[in-house]
Amino acid sequence: MLAYIAEFLGTMILILLGCGVVANVNLNKSGMKGAGPIQITLAWGLAVMIPAYIFGAASGAHFNPALTIALAVDGTIPWSIVPGYIVAQFAGAFLGACLVYVLYKGQFDETEDGTTKRGVFCTAPSIDNKPLNFLSEIIGTFVLVFAIKGISNVAGAGDVGLNNIFVFGIIVSIGMSLGGLTGYAINPARDIGPRLAHAVLPIKNKCDSGWGYSIVPLLGPIVGAVLAVLVYGAIPW
Amino acid sequence: MLAYIAEFLGTMILILLGCGVVANVNLNKSGMKGAGPIQITLAWGLAVMIPAYIFGAASGAHFNPALTIALAVDGTIPWSIVPGYIVAQFAGAFLGACLVYVLYKGQFDETEDGTTKRGVFCTAPSIDNKPLNFLSEIIGTFVLVFAIKGISNVAGAGDVGLNNIFVFGIIVSIGMSLGGLTGYAINPARDIGPRLAHAVLPIKNKCDSGWGYSIVPLLGPIVGAVLAVLVYGAIPW
Amino acid sequence: MLAYIAEFLGTMILILLGCGVVANVNLNKSGMKGAGPIQITLAWGLAVMIPAYIFGAASGAHFNPALTIALAVDGTIPWSIVPGYIVAQFAGAFLGACLVYVLYKGQFDETEDGTTKRGVFCTAPSIDNKPLNFLSEIIGTFVLVFAIKGISNVAGAGDVGLNNIFVFGIIVSIGMSLGGLTGYAINPARDIGPRLAHAVLPIKNKCDSGWGYSIVPLLGPIVGAVLAVLVYGAIPW
Amino acid sequence: MLAYIAEFLGTMILILLGCGVVANVNLNKSGMKGAGPIQITLAWGLAVMIPAYIFGAASGAHFNPALTIALAVDGTIPWSIVPGYIVAQFAGAFLGACLVYVLYKGQFDETEDGTTKRGVFCTAPSIDNKPLNFLSEIIGTFVLVFAIKGISNVAGAGDVGLNNIFVFGIIVSIGMSLGGLTGYAINPARDIGPRLAHAVLPIKNKCDSGWGYSIVPLLGPIVGAVLAVLVYGAIPW
Repeated sequence: MLAYIAEFLGTMILILLGCGVVANVNLNKSGMKGAGPIQITLAWGLAVMIPAYIFGAASGAHFNPALTIALAVDGTIPWSIVPGYIVAQFAGAFLGACLVYVLYKGQFDETEDGTTKRGVFCTAPSIDNKPLNFLSEIIGTFVLVFAIKGISNVAGAGDVGLNNIFVFGIIVSIGMSLGGLTGYAINPARDIGPRLAHAVLPIKNKCDSGWGYSIVPLLGPIVGAVLAVLVYGAIPW
Repeated sequence: MLAYIAEFLGTMILILLGCGVVANVNLNKSGMKGAGPIQITLAWGLAVMIPAYIFGAASGAHFNPALTIALAVDGTIPWSIVPGYIVAQFAGAFLGACLVYVLYKGQFDETEDGTTKRGVFCTAPSIDNKPLNFLSEIIGTFVLVFAIKGISNVAGAGDVGLNNIFVFGIIVSIGMSLGGLTGYAINPARDIGPRLAHAVLPIKNKCDSGWGYSIVPLLGPIVGAVLAVLVYGAIPW
Repeated sequence: MLAYIAEFLGTMILILLGCGVVANVNLNKSGMKGAGPIQITLAWGLAVMIPAYIFGAASGAHFNPALTIALAVDGTIPWSIVPGYIVAQFAGAFLGACLVYVLYKGQFDETEDGTTKRGVFCTAPSIDNKPLNFLSEIIGTFVLVFAIKGISNVAGAGDVGLNNIFVFGIIVSIGMSLGGLTGYAINPARDIGPRLAHAVLPIKNKCDSGWGYSIVPLLGPIVGAVLAVLVYGAIPW
Repeated sequence: MLAYIAEFLGTMILILLGCGVVANVNLNKSGMKGAGPIQITLAWGLAVMIPAYIFGAASGAHFNPALTIALAVDGTIPWSIVPGYIVAQFAGAFLGACLVYVLYKGQFDETEDGTTKRGVFCTAPSIDNKPLNFLSEIIGTFVLVFAIKGISNVAGAGDVGLNNIFVFGIIVSIGMSLGGLTGYAINPARDIGPRLAHAVLPIKNKCDSGWGYSIVPLLGPIVGAVLAVLVYGAIPW
């Protein structure tokens, strides 16, 4: 039970802080408008690191259905917990995004552009090209999951919590190096949960929720994550 | 006695470095004018981390009446030390802000805008909406205190001092993700101490000290901190 | 065998993330265009740190022929593994750059300037002056290798993985302090592998691949690395 | 003997990387011109951290006559080593600055403004006010030395090298929060060594070397450092 609570709360905090920085930097009348991609990428890294160290011992701190599925494929976790984890992750992501909307309600109202407002919730490609967008999410999530698996090669990192610093570094790295392609969902819950929130919330002058694109951040990360554990497992460590 | 000295000196250093970066980045004739929100949020994180590692062993390094009260509610500390801690925190914050004024006296004199000058001392909302501003401070401080409690889940972090790095990450994260709403006081002493300094110091062409708003950074953080320890305690770790 | 695989995969990830950030920040239609040198230097640091902690135990995580040669001169590794390491490093760097091209294909097509496009792949001096450019690469790589050797002076860093954080710091430091001179190759594979990719890939409107300059990032780092291990060895630790 | 070599080489690397970032960010024709105060403050932090972890075991990694004198006042080190340390520090700082000049020779030649060129070498106040400038250097160095002393309160930090990360944080914090006042020399060797280099090097169209101001970065840090060890020693830890 604790593990499901941890995945729910952890993903909620992740999305509160992660979608929060996009609102903070991109919406009108925010006191930090215009801070740019460095603040966005650093803050997403922290948004993962903080719930990761809090809930790591409780649930493994996945917060990401692609990672959960890959670790089940991998044999690291039993398949029996996968459905509960995924439900908790999507629910937490949805609620985290709702919280961002409530907090930034005034700033949403002051922002005209519907795409900017949707961008607080979910990802979109900088150039529309489904196969390449799909590949971007595969590669990004491959790096994410491969690097998470690789933390186990640093013997004592987990003993002092340095593994959480590596997790921060991985998220920031993927964002800074590949984030301008598709907005680096690399996590179906991170994209679909807030996208659903965008669809149901009474946001002023909102544009469509971009469901046509949502297949990419839904499936791309799962493919990338599974590939990562397979390649990782094939290396003769 | 050491604990009170630690809270006093630690909060003074926190405010010297924290209000210092706002002066450094926002006042005219400062050599780093215009460096922006990334420098402000990183520097506030360091402003907490440095006294935290110095005084952590001496007093627990609260520097924040909301955290002190919540930890008493929580049973982590006895109520008997709460009054002394809070007095030390407000006094340290007041003196730290006075020091910033003295150091940046020339830059204050060269800055026309009264709101900019007040912004070196205390927080203000980007959109005036008391209930939402209050909620912002509650949520921000909830994350702060929940994340501080959660450090205990990382077994060996305290042994090598990595807990202080997490504290840095928490402060930076809240600032980068939610800071543009109300300026993230998340600490009554951080706001009220310097606000009092603003009120009494002979600042050239100063505007009012915004006492009408001060109820928000005074009470919001206390509510958020107490909620955090209650929720944290309700989780079946 | 594992060591060669590690050098190959690690260098591929290094270049995917390292050349990736340059594309992300400099190409038209990237969602993070204009993020600037701070993002580039931080991301190159992470691009080295991530494969370093993953593959450190497997191969020592060189990813750099200059470092490999210097450690053989030094007696730290046997000369017999040097050729295999270097082949793996160049091959990984070449493939990593090809992957960046595929991912950013749309953005490359939208970018007119050939020099900007080549700059995603390989380094170039800000002022053309072969002897000084050569000296820049020697000094930069000297600092890199001297600082890597010096990690062994921090007794317990390797036990918890903090050595990887130092490696991150070294790369960021060289980039931030000396990077504007020649683009800090400080690694022949990092420059020549992607340069070869630039030469053979069907990039739209590409300029020449700058082979006339390539002698500098090929030989400068080797000279600097060997000098570093010699000076380091001459100090009476 | 090793300790003096370590202080000499460490201070040289510190100034190479520290003055290097100022050149990198401020001189014309540098590839990273305009990166701003965040890059400068982060890079100075790394410029101290890297030689600190390399030479910490060999000499204590002072690289700063004010720190050396204060630790002698404090009884931490014997007075007999103070003169040798200080000579090594000034000599290393001078040579490091010469190296920056050689590397950035082309960029110096392309930069008209003499004050910008001098700013690569040594500090200057943003507002000329000797008593306040003096106070700035005293307070900045007080924080530096007090925070260095305080690292010993984190029991296991030195065992894994995390103390070096704190040192990085201290330098960045002082720079980000107080750096716009006087350029945060907080170290007589960091200012006077490069200032001497500015005076003797054949820099094109250079302005005067500002010796009239040099008394501030020479004496202010010593006063601040000694005050810091006295206050630190007076606390009933």
